[in-house]
Parts: sequence; C-alpha cells; structure tokens
Amino acid sequence: MKQQGILAVVSGFSGAGKGTLMKALLEKYDNYALSISATTRKPREGEVHGREYFFMSVDEFEALIANDQLIEHAKYVSNYYGTPRSYVEEKMAEGKDVILEIEIQGALKVKEKFPETLLIFVVPPSAEELKKRLIGRGTETMEVIEQRMNRATEEAEAMDAYDYILVNDDLNKAVESLHNLIQSQHMQARCNAELIKTMKEELAAIVG
Amino acid sequence: MKQQGILAVVSGFSGAGKGTLMKALLEKYDNYALSISATTRKPREGEVHGREYFFMSVDEFEALIANDQLIEHAKYVSNYYGTPRSYVEEKMAEGKDVILEIEIQGALKVKEKFPETLLIFVVPPSAEELKKRLIGRGTETMEVIEQRMNRATEEAEAMDAYDYILVNDDLNKAVESLHNLIQSQHMQARCNAELIKTMKEELAAIVG
Repeated sequence: MKQQGILAVVSGFSGAGKGTLMKALLEKYDNYALSISATTRKPREGEVHGREYFFMSVDEFEALIANDQLIEHAKYVSNYYGTPRSYVEEKMAEGKDVILEIEIQGALKVKEKFPETLLIFVVPPSAEELKKRLIGRGTETMEVIEQRMNRATEEAEAMDAYDYILVNDDLNKAVESLHNLIQSQHMQARCNAELIKTMKEELAAIVG
Repeated sequence: MKQQGILAVVSGFSGAGKGTLMKALLEKYDNYALSISATTRKPREGEVHGREYFFMSVDEFEALIANDQLIEHAKYVSNYYGTPRSYVEEKMAEGKDVILEIEIQGALKVKEKFPETLLIFVVPPSAEELKKRLIGRGTETMEVIEQRMNRATEEAEAMDAYDYILVNDDLNKAVESLHNLIQSQHMQARCNAELIKTMKEELAAIVG
C-alpha cells in the first residue's frame, strides 16, 4: 500500500529564495506537488491562471469559503488568498508530498487544523545577505526594499513557531536538506501504522 | 557556535541488523558517537572493556546509580545495564550526534527524561525475513531462535511508542535513511535558537 504524502508548509522572508528553491526541488524530484493558491487579486503581467494562482472573483472565492473548500484563507491588502482543499487532499492520497508556499498567518492556521503538517521556515544565511539579495534583484526601489526588510523583521518573530529552519545559503545543499527532511518524515511511526500492524500480525502468526 | 549534538536511541528486534547498521554508519560518517553501556554481567569471549561494554562490579554500578551518573539503567536476568551520563553529555556538547543502542525499557526512560530524544526502531522488512536472518546466522539453536521470535513479538507492542521506524532491507539505503533522519533534526527550530536570535537582532539593527 502506498503511504500517504506528507504535507509541508514552506514560508520565509521575501528574498530568502523560496521560489528558486521550490522550482529546483520540483525539477529534481518527482514525488512533490506544489499547491497553487486561489486569490482575488488581479493577475500581474506574465502570470498564468493555474500556474502562479487560481485567479477568481470575490463571489467565487467566498463560495469556496462557504463550502469549506479552503484549508486556510486570509485577506492581505483587501485581496483574498487561500489554499484549495481538493488539490492537496488528492495529491496526498496519491502519495505525493504536497508543499504549500504560504504566508505565516496561513501556515499557523494549517498547523492548527492539521497538527502533523511540517512547518519549514526558509532564511538567508544572514540579514545582511537578505538585504543584498533584495538590492541585487535590481527590480525594486529602495522604498520597496525597506518595506520588505521591515516585514522580515516582523515575520522573524514567528520563526520559533515553525518546526524546522532551513538556511538557504547554497541552493543545491538547501534542496538536498529540504528533500531529506521531508523524506525522513515518512519514517514517522504514525506514517507507518500499516507496517507496524502487519509486523505484529506476522510475528503472532509465526510464533503462534 | 557549534550546535549541540542530537541524542538518538536505536532499538529493534534481535536480528533486525542494528549492530551492522551502527557499524556502517560510524564508518561512513564521523559526526556520530556510539554510547557504550555499563554492565555488571561478565564479559563474553572476545568482548573488550570499553568497546562492547564497561564491565564493572555491582558495587561500582550501584555507586553510579547513587551519584546520578546514569541516564537510564535496568536489570535484566539479574544483571545491571545502564548508560553513563558523562560520555553522552560530553560528546553532545562537542557537537557529536550520540547514539544509544539500547533496549525498549531503557529507551522509554531516556525519552521521559529527555523528551527531545529521537527514538528509532529498526525492523527487518518482514517477520519471515527476521526468522530467516536468525536462522541464517547458524550460530543459534532452534530454541534460542524461538525465544528471540517470542521476544520480538512482545517488543513489537512498543513500536508505536517510537518516533521513527527504520526498515532495514538494504544496508546502504538504511544507513543513508538513518543519517538523513538524524541530520535533518539539526534543522529543528529548537536546535537553532541561536540562529533565530541572531537573525532577529541583525534585522532590528539594519531596519533600525
């Protein structure tokens, strides 16, 4: 019997390299499924429905809430964001390890609902490095960079609430660490109830 | 600052291959320290003091108990067995991941005292395979094999109390799984309190 997948939430500061990390993980290993969030915000240029987000109207989103079809949802700057339940449940049942790349607020809600969720917080090796990376992108104004640094300072307060901290220094190493972490969770006794039961039965049958 | 080591307890049925697994793990990686138990039983042929066990008199052992120098101890068949505290604490402080290969009774005592201990239970892929391995050794009488199978049947009842189940099918794979499991535990938020504190301070200093 195929074991059910692990549910892992990945959060972290803007500039910690979550996006690149997720992309590299999914390219290297085929046992993962990245959950796509639903949102009521307008698509930005280059964003594709069903790839970056499921874009929808407020009415559509509120219908999902009303029908308990979201694992978690929150409102940021007057836009809804949420995690559709069906995709996550289907993929986990298929044995895929499902990754939610979501904000802290949502992460803590998921953990409350599903205590077995793995909460992983991605950080750059230092705050200095975070600032460098944000500046290095070259796409943001200093004002936006300062906003992100301020936000990181707030978000850092929640780091202790996460189960694991992943330092993203070297991309390849970080991918391996993340993969090993999630895969080792399949060894949890609670994930192996079937194996334990079978072992007990087999032993009892042999010993008689 | 070097992170403190992880404390991992490895238990499992006689014939599950714990000994071979530990040997292979310690040969391949140098970040582990295998704790050596103290016992009052007499050394068997080929056993060396300080390698298989610290062999000692009942008086010596009871002095260790009286001075709280054992993490756990138990009596089996009128002999004492216990885990000396100093070795474990020293190695962990050096940053070594310390492995205790001990019985279930002792494992649960260690977990009670140190809830952060990783309890790992090693099993063969099946009960049939366990019996085969015990017979395959060719060193035991059928009576001893039956005793071991009976004991395994009893011990199987405790499997659920362990954190992780390691199926020892292929030795190399099992070594890697065990290594990845223990190493990934260094990412736990509680192991990274220093990193979290530094990150918060650095961010606060930059943001001002």
